[in-house]
Amino acid sequence: MNLNKILVLHGPNLNLLGKREPEIYGSTTIDDINSMLKEEASKAGFALDAMQTNHEGVLVDAIQAANGQYAYIILNAAAFTHYSIAVRDAIAAISVPTIEVHLSNIHKREEFRHHSVIASVVVGQICGFGADSYFAALQVVIRELNREAGK
Amino acid sequence: MNLNKILVLHGPNLNLLGKREPEIYGSTTIDDINSMLKEEASKAGFALDAMQTNHEGVLVDAIQAANGQYAYIILNAAAFTHYSIAVRDAIAAISVPTIEVHLSNIHKREEFRHHSVIASVVVGQICGFGADSYFAALQVVIRELNREAGK
Amino acid sequence: MNLNKILVLHGPNLNLLGKREPEIYGSTTIDDINSMLKEEASKAGFALDAMQTNHEGVLVDAIQAANGQYAYIILNAAAFTHYSIAVRDAIAAISVPTIEVHLSNIHKREEFRHHSVIASVVVGQICGFGADSYFAALQVVIRELNREAGK
Amino acid sequence: MNLNKILVLHGPNLNLLGKREPEIYGSTTIDDINSMLKEEASKAGFALDAMQTNHEGVLVDAIQAANGQYAYIILNAAAFTHYSIAVRDAIAAISVPTIEVHLSNIHKREEFRHHSVIASVVVGQICGFGADSYFAALQVVIRELNREAGK
Amino acid sequence: MNLNKILVLHGPNLNLLGKREPEIYGSTTIDDINSMLKEEASKAGFALDAMQTNHEGVLVDAIQAANGQYAYIILNAAAFTHYSIAVRDAIAAISVPTIEVHLSNIHKREEFRHHSVIASVVVGQICGFGADSYFAALQVVIRELNREAGK
Amino acid sequence: MNLNKILVLHGPNLNLLGKREPEIYGSTTIDDINSMLKEEASKAGFALDAMQTNHEGVLVDAIQAANGQYAYIILNAAAFTHYSIAVRDAIAAISVPTIEVHLSNIHKREEFRHHSVIASVVVGQICGFGADSYFAALQVVIRELNREAGK
Amino acid sequence: MNLNKILVLHGPNLNLLGKREPEIYGSTTIDDINSMLKEEASKAGFALDAMQTNHEGVLVDAIQAANGQYAYIILNAAAFTHYSIAVRDAIAAISVPTIEVHLSNIHKREEFRHHSVIASVVVGQICGFGADSYFAALQVVIRELNREAGK
Amino acid sequence: MNLNKILVLHGPNLNLLGKREPEIYGSTTIDDINSMLKEEASKAGFALDAMQTNHEGVLVDAIQAANGQYAYIILNAAAFTHYSIAVRDAIAAISVPTIEVHLSNIHKREEFRHHSVIASVVVGQICGFGADSYFAALQVVIRELNREAGK
Amino acid sequence: MNLNKILVLHGPNLNLLGKREPEIYGSTTIDDINSMLKEEASKAGFALDAMQTNHEGVLVDAIQAANGQYAYIILNAAAFTHYSIAVRDAIAAISVPTIEVHLSNIHKREEFRHHSVIASVVVGQICGFGADSYFAALQVVIRELNREAGK
Amino acid sequence: MNLNKILVLHGPNLNLLGKREPEIYGSTTIDDINSMLKEEASKAGFALDAMQTNHEGVLVDAIQAANGQYAYIILNAAAFTHYSIAVRDAIAAISVPTIEVHLSNIHKREEFRHHSVIASVVVGQICGFGADSYFAALQVVIRELNREAGK
Amino acid sequence: MNLNKILVLHGPNLNLLGKREPEIYGSTTIDDINSMLKEEASKAGFALDAMQTNHEGVLVDAIQAANGQYAYIILNAAAFTHYSIAVRDAIAAISVPTIEVHLSNIHKREEFRHHSVIASVVVGQICGFGADSYFAALQVVIRELNREAGK
Amino acid sequence: MNLNKILVLHGPNLNLLGKREPEIYGSTTIDDINSMLKEEASKAGFALDAMQTNHEGVLVDAIQAANGQYAYIILNAAAFTHYSIAVRDAIAAISVPTIEVHLSNIHKREEFRHHSVIASVVVGQICGFGADSYFAALQVVIRELNREAGK
Repeated sequence: MNLNKILVLHGPNLNLLGKREPEIYGSTTIDDINSMLKEEASKAGFALDAMQTNHEGVLVDAIQAANGQYAYIILNAAAFTHYSIAVRDAIAAISVPTIEVHLSNIHKREEFRHHSVIASVVVGQICGFGADSYFAALQVVIRELNREAGK
Repeated sequence: MNLNKILVLHGPNLNLLGKREPEIYGSTTIDDINSMLKEEASKAGFALDAMQTNHEGVLVDAIQAANGQYAYIILNAAAFTHYSIAVRDAIAAISVPTIEVHLSNIHKREEFRHHSVIASVVVGQICGFGADSYFAALQVVIRELNREAGK
Repeated sequence: MNLNKILVLHGPNLNLLGKREPEIYGSTTIDDINSMLKEEASKAGFALDAMQTNHEGVLVDAIQAANGQYAYIILNAAAFTHYSIAVRDAIAAISVPTIEVHLSNIHKREEFRHHSVIASVVVGQICGFGADSYFAALQVVIRELNREAGK
Repeated sequence: MNLNKILVLHGPNLNLLGKREPEIYGSTTIDDINSMLKEEASKAGFALDAMQTNHEGVLVDAIQAANGQYAYIILNAAAFTHYSIAVRDAIAAISVPTIEVHLSNIHKREEFRHHSVIASVVVGQICGFGADSYFAALQVVIRELNREAGK
Repeated sequence: MNLNKILVLHGPNLNLLGKREPEIYGSTTIDDINSMLKEEASKAGFALDAMQTNHEGVLVDAIQAANGQYAYIILNAAAFTHYSIAVRDAIAAISVPTIEVHLSNIHKREEFRHHSVIASVVVGQICGFGADSYFAALQVVIRELNREAGK
Repeated sequence: MNLNKILVLHGPNLNLLGKREPEIYGSTTIDDINSMLKEEASKAGFALDAMQTNHEGVLVDAIQAANGQYAYIILNAAAFTHYSIAVRDAIAAISVPTIEVHLSNIHKREEFRHHSVIASVVVGQICGFGADSYFAALQVVIRELNREAGK
Repeated sequence: MNLNKILVLHGPNLNLLGKREPEIYGSTTIDDINSMLKEEASKAGFALDAMQTNHEGVLVDAIQAANGQYAYIILNAAAFTHYSIAVRDAIAAISVPTIEVHLSNIHKREEFRHHSVIASVVVGQICGFGADSYFAALQVVIRELNREAGK
Repeated sequence: MNLNKILVLHGPNLNLLGKREPEIYGSTTIDDINSMLKEEASKAGFALDAMQTNHEGVLVDAIQAANGQYAYIILNAAAFTHYSIAVRDAIAAISVPTIEVHLSNIHKREEFRHHSVIASVVVGQICGFGADSYFAALQVVIRELNREAGK
Repeated sequence: MNLNKILVLHGPNLNLLGKREPEIYGSTTIDDINSMLKEEASKAGFALDAMQTNHEGVLVDAIQAANGQYAYIILNAAAFTHYSIAVRDAIAAISVPTIEVHLSNIHKREEFRHHSVIASVVVGQICGFGADSYFAALQVVIRELNREAGK
Repeated sequence: MNLNKILVLHGPNLNLLGKREPEIYGSTTIDDINSMLKEEASKAGFALDAMQTNHEGVLVDAIQAANGQYAYIILNAAAFTHYSIAVRDAIAAISVPTIEVHLSNIHKREEFRHHSVIASVVVGQICGFGADSYFAALQVVIRELNREAGK
Repeated sequence: MNLNKILVLHGPNLNLLGKREPEIYGSTTIDDINSMLKEEASKAGFALDAMQTNHEGVLVDAIQAANGQYAYIILNAAAFTHYSIAVRDAIAAISVPTIEVHLSNIHKREEFRHHSVIASVVVGQICGFGADSYFAALQVVIRELNREAGK
Repeated sequence: MNLNKILVLHGPNLNLLGKREPEIYGSTTIDDINSMLKEEASKAGFALDAMQTNHEGVLVDAIQAANGQYAYIILNAAAFTHYSIAVRDAIAAISVPTIEVHLSNIHKREEFRHHSVIASVVVGQICGFGADSYFAALQVVIRELNREAGK
């Protein structure tokens, strides 16, 4: 099994991160986050791939294709989190454990963002720490994979 | 400021962890988790205190007392998560940033556990990774405190 | 195993029973009920302990401490019935079967008393018969323990 | 007044009890329960009649006919519990006190079984103890009738 | 067509009317009401039949059988008003116009009595005037039938 | 007491009745209905006054002013039925019994018309019979006043 | 086992099918449908019995009696679909697989018809195809029984 | 008109059918089902095309393109069933009658799967019979098309 | 009776008042408010005691102990206002009239603060005037006690 | 600025206060309350005007006209409290701080009276103290105006 | 027909527009808007009348009076939008097409402003563009009237 | 900045406009509307681009791409209006002001169309005027852009 590869998936509108209003949101882009995650994973002996899409069908395809190819998925489904049962079903249909992450604390935002249709099919959920949400997820993955590897 | 101290608070019934049905839940106790967290914090140059209580008032007192004493609180409020507005108000009243953690994925459990009354006053939420939920929170704290310290 | 001991727990405000407006509610106090229950249990060959508290944390501690010490808990959680998930989790965490009792028929009272957060973790529920609710619970316990003892 | 007679009424599908899958549910039938209840009532000096029906109208007729004939009704309305306002109105229309019993703990079952339309017109409710639910109800009746008789 | 015949149908538990607690509810029975309605109808040149039942199926059969036989149905469905979609469908399936009546003002009673599942398939609804509810309905019928007859 | 006078009150937009689309709604106006009601009341020995208004405050004033002046109010509150708590409070504040009428069957119309905020403070409700709703109400009044007068 | 017999049950008001307004609904009666279903079943080598009732209790009795006698039940519970938990419990209590059918598409009708209390205890549901709903169900039964028989 | 062609559309994640955990779900794939459906349709003299997609927009395009090309659509919208109003509007915008099918009984699954946003724009719904759901739908289509063709 | 003594009770987190961010909230502490209230009460000839606690059980005990000792309770239950049925039951169980006060206008805050579980067992409610809420309550008490004393 | 003038506004049906059933409600009228409030205000050095209306539009006009003329409004909106968004908008549109008062404890009355549409635009709310609700409000006003005046 | 006249109606509190806080809301008043609308209408060859009222009854009267006098109504019902069924019924009762406008985007404001009781009886709705909402409505009217006039 | 360019976006199924049932809906197509809008914009000195898609991801991409390229977006999101949070987030993420339009009055259609998930992130909403909804939006844009340009 390819236990050494981790997949990071970013959902709709996350491609705009760091490209607009840098004085407010900072200038860290999705590419920057991906680079740092790859470096961190690499240090721990894992490969990490990343992808962003605004298309629900493309995300469903990517989740399906991860099966048997990746040890873990770290998924920020963004807007899809709240209504895409197709994304949910894709996660439930494969055997790759998935971690749900969000940049913001979704419980501090609009009412409709408090509910995640994917939360009950993922391993766990991390939200509210900006880019650190991804890094916390990565640490969980590394701890678990090392444990499974008997390290 | 005591930026070097982190407080871990465990809510009701977590004192039973690892003491019952070890063949199912494992034998890791709250004391074991505390020890490991202290060690991990120590490696990063931080002190870490921990406390468990079944009493809501004691938890409120502890949160209030943390003000000005700790850089961060990592809180597993357990059952209080879902109804203790007193705990919520205590977190909101102090200036210590707080991270909410849960051993289990609360979205896979009973309907009434899907809602957290403290989620909107904490920095962020981590759930579903067993003891690793605490370690993911600790990593977020360390990353953030190091960043603030300019490391 | 201490199959001969039964624990009766009374929640908040039940200490006032029989002490106010005796012309209306009668003058039977919680102590009177406890004495009669002990006598009835004794006749059937069982010991019975009883405790009352207005503090949720004390009730949680008592339920946890019952584990391995008592064959059955008869619990009138009073107001805690309707919101204390901490009490619920304590019941669910131990292996002592618990019976929920209420003096009044909670379905004839305010809307918010119709729902019990502990009902789904207890063996069964008895309500509406005044002090007889405790005695009906005690009979269930005696029948069951005798059956288990092969009597 | 016929204070010496008690009526036990069983609602729809309870005639199947003990007749299917005895390896799971045991082989105790409604007839067996009725026999044991009659014997127990008899020991206490009371007569006890019992009836089962799958027809709502027959149950309403039986409740009406009990008026002035029985000291108490012990009623397991089964499925009718959750929607038969006709049964509820029959109970409310007569002056025989009625006790609601259920074999299973209805709060552990499907959401729609948590609500009883008859609960607010009965004296009290007992659920979750299998056949013992009937015996607990019988004890309440005996205690109350003896008390009224000055025993 | 039998435009001269009117059918009055009384639902469950109305057979008890006037038979219990006459000092409170008066001693007017369903039979008394039927006699008075027949007399009033007779004066206006119409025949009037009446029936009471506690059985939903019997009521459905009676409504079906009225088709082509009666000019109007005056129906007090009692408890069935609030849940019997079978009674509703029977009314909707025939071409006899039906008037819904209630002795009491259902809007002053329990919440669940505020909703009628038959209200949207009847001509109109009259409630709150005791036996006069039937007489008001009868007057509507007489006015309408006379109007149709060109009187 | 002025037991011989009856007040009929018509709410907003009822002044348009019979004035628009007579080929559909007929040409009977509110004035026509008032005349016929006066005639019918007169035959039974009662005087009848009538008033229409589109102004909630005017309706409240009229209800208050009826106190001590009229034996009964027949009220078609039209749109105010569904939200005017001021009209409701006026009815509740006086001692003149009030009957609620509607031309149409409000249960066949939009969802928001199914609920009446005045239904629980009136004697009873009549709806669905067009102008006959008023006449059915008048008959109830006449029957009741004659009964009170010992006729 | 009597794997060769199939039972078709029709609920309340279906006896009126084809008997009223044939210019709209056609003149196919329940008897016609039963005949055609028997013929179709016969061709496939199965016997088929059919029954209609307006009485809930009769339907519950019939379902119970089918146990051990029929290989499959095809049930159009009509109005009972939406509230009869007694019918639901009867289906759940026996071991004969049951298919729920409806002539009309219940999702295009009134809100209260969108929910079926029996849907979660049947094998599957077919609605919206008029009499063809029964034939589609019959085909499912034949395919399954042939498969089980190794055909 | 192309009354001889039938279109079968499969929604998101159905491409995984039969490809994962064959020991549980069997090894029948969407391609297998399509082949069998084509054969069955062919026997009855009809052509049948089939398509699967994980992309909502592709499904909307396909439904639009079917207009004037196919006599019937058999649609398993999978996850889209529960939220895609775009798919619903596409079905409503064309004149090809559509049948909704589901492999599983959606009423036995999670609460959010009980509601279908397309159910009220299709002819009817079939669910719960595995691959047989498609065959039952095909039979309905064949019966109807033969009937229309005067066979 | 001790009609001269008034009890002021402050709930959880109110001990922090005036101690944090004085530039925003001012520097008035709970002790300051208590002193001013005592002085004001004293001027009117009454004694006034005050207490603050973060513990629900302690608050319940204090309310119970006030019975027979105080003429009035002025209670700011803070967070407990919204869920502590135990506090509610304590107020309902004693005969000391209680006034509910809040510093802020709870209707301008989060949705969950709009509902008070104690509002229906207190004499009245005052909110939104900062420390003046207590003084308004005190004036009500003084006016009422003077009136009762015939002043 | 006219900081010396206070406006008291009474809503619909309050003109009946003290005029009906004096043996129950006492004989204090709105005029009496106004006189006493004027006297109390006068003692503190303020003028006080008062007005009552049953007309929503008149109340809106009065609130608008108060702008720039009065230092404070004390408003008992009565029935309008629960639905008049026009009154709410008037309060929000002017800069005169407004206090909401009610004679009765609205939380002990019908469900629909628990919600106030004006509560979130007023300074605070006082209810449950009869006429004393006005006097408590007046004291708040006097304390605040004196504080602003530096007294 | 007077197809050349357009009526603009402004509801409660809109008379304050431009009169308070001009530095924030600008100094454009309702009179200014009316003047500009009249000028714009005039250019297109139409007359335009305008009226503002805080009284619901006056608005109902005005809508009724517009019948047969105006080609179109442009209505900003302000607060009445959300509860005045009387205004809704007036619009529905006349044959003048009506356009609903709002200065602000009601979907960005309080929850209770998201629902309009008049939206389903008007031609269409325009909100969010300040005074431009009126001008957009006027353009729709002009386009439609010109189209009808064959221009 | 490109203040001279306006983007019109049409969502799913709008490509069918004018192509089906022209005798009912007319024969105006999306292309016709686009041409007329371009002409109208051109007259006012603005360029206007238009696009239609059935794919949510394509719409999200188009909204993102508009940033910095267009002065305004006029968006008819069709079915996406009611569930696509991805479209909503795209609008919120860019700085181009967006106007929401609908051909039909969505408040007269199915319940689920009354709610728009994008309404709270757009400038305003226009619905119910057919193609004129676009022209009303265009007029708002022109008025605003001219105003900003100081015309």
